[in-house]
Amino acid sequence: MRIDILTLFPDMLEGPLSASIPGSIREQGLADIRIHDLREWGLGRHRSVDDAPYGGGAGMVMRPEPVAAALDALGGPDATTILLDPAGEPFRQTRAEDLALREHLILVCPRYEGVDERIRDLVDLELSIGDYVLTGGELPALVVVDAVIRLLPGAIDDASTTEESFANGLLEYPHYTRPATFRGRGVPDVLVSGNHEAVRRWRLATSLRRTAMRRPDLLEGREASLEERAILDDLAKRPDAPEDPPSR
Amino acid sequence: MRIDILTLFPDMLEGPLSASIPGSIREQGLADIRIHDLREWGLGRHRSVDDAPYGGGAGMVMRPEPVAAALDALGGPDATTILLDPAGEPFRQTRAEDLALREHLILVCPRYEGVDERIRDLVDLELSIGDYVLTGGELPALVVVDAVIRLLPGAIDDASTTEESFANGLLEYPHYTRPATFRGRGVPDVLVSGNHEAVRRWRLATSLRRTAMRRPDLLEGREASLEERAILDDLAKRPDAPEDPPSR
Repeated sequence: MRIDILTLFPDMLEGPLSASIPGSIREQGLADIRIHDLREWGLGRHRSVDDAPYGGGAGMVMRPEPVAAALDALGGPDATTILLDPAGEPFRQTRAEDLALREHLILVCPRYEGVDERIRDLVDLELSIGDYVLTGGELPALVVVDAVIRLLPGAIDDASTTEESFANGLLEYPHYTRPATFRGRGVPDVLVSGNHEAVRRWRLATSLRRTAMRRPDLLEGREASLEERAILDDLAKRPDAPEDPPSR
Repeated sequence: MRIDILTLFPDMLEGPLSASIPGSIREQGLADIRIHDLREWGLGRHRSVDDAPYGGGAGMVMRPEPVAAALDALGGPDATTILLDPAGEPFRQTRAEDLALREHLILVCPRYEGVDERIRDLVDLELSIGDYVLTGGELPALVVVDAVIRLLPGAIDDASTTEESFANGLLEYPHYTRPATFRGRGVPDVLVSGNHEAVRRWRLATSLRRTAMRRPDLLEGREASLEERAILDDLAKRPDAPEDPPSR
């Protein structure tokens, strides 16, 4: 997969894309990620990329021409162009899975005051990573790239990606590791029982229960299996049951 | 404001926190941001911070002791401790505004497989930046820090923070800058009319209309002014009106 990122602050992006898992994904050649300074396509001697807003107001607005020129230069028939913008489609795991199947992504990071409306005509997709305001589109671009490249085949252990939060539309079950007792709180008996089927059932039940209590919105419209429905029915009958079974 | 970030990948964080607006906020002394390697509080000769999960499964789980030791070392009576976690409270602009009023934030970045359940007992708040899976908690920590520090008094032009997306619970109105015509699409007449009141009304109307069409969920439970209600009533009567008024 090839990913091009258009930004006014290339320095912000290299660190997070070079360390840890994203760094190893790039080293393995699974993702060819290139960071471009949008100013390369800026206008005139000062390589200007923004101007004052028509109608007045605070801040500067990104002009359309540099973005158009950059997309013309970097694009191709397989490219999916994405604008990171608070008014965009809320980015979710299903969209990450969809983007992981594409050949070529081009991400445009706006500066924080906003982009000329006509830039929206130039892209295939507008994405928002959440309902909060950031100083620019760089962190949103990093979030989208991180969520996408970790899904590429070979990027990380497959078992990790199928068992985690949101992969099945639920929050993840509770994890425990050593020590067996920490500040008076132990580990649920079932996890040290050696009974794999009981562990599986406990994890599904706690995952469902946690989702129902913390994020009921995630269950709306989700199709539950028979086993899941039985657990949810049981939870509805005993709404004051603790989120986790008692610990030893 | 003081912010401490606990991470296993300090290299990922320095770049985004040194460039652009976050960099200048730090240089101005508005936010004292310190990045700590959690391994400093790791266990034994290898400074271990994780272990295999009880009950089996893929990946490693972050142990509670190093996090507890780090929070003991860095914390204080004014500290608000935050775990970045997909099962946490969905982070929104109102929470960013709340955190911007605190004296001292300590953010804990988990590694991607998960944290021992008992770590949740050690923190004041769990936050999730969105319903997608990332390789670690570093990008979420950067997002929270960025959203918070830009709200600190003096960080950026005040007019910018009161007029933007989500600040009033709405998506932002469309921006236009030069050129007057780009690829055949012009600038709405009202923005070059010089009539400030007409510009204000147009911006409110397009902001409301865009929110109603793209993110109706944001309008649920939101209290609208009389002027806003009139615009929304009008929109309900003409649902097929274009999102923006015709351009010249």
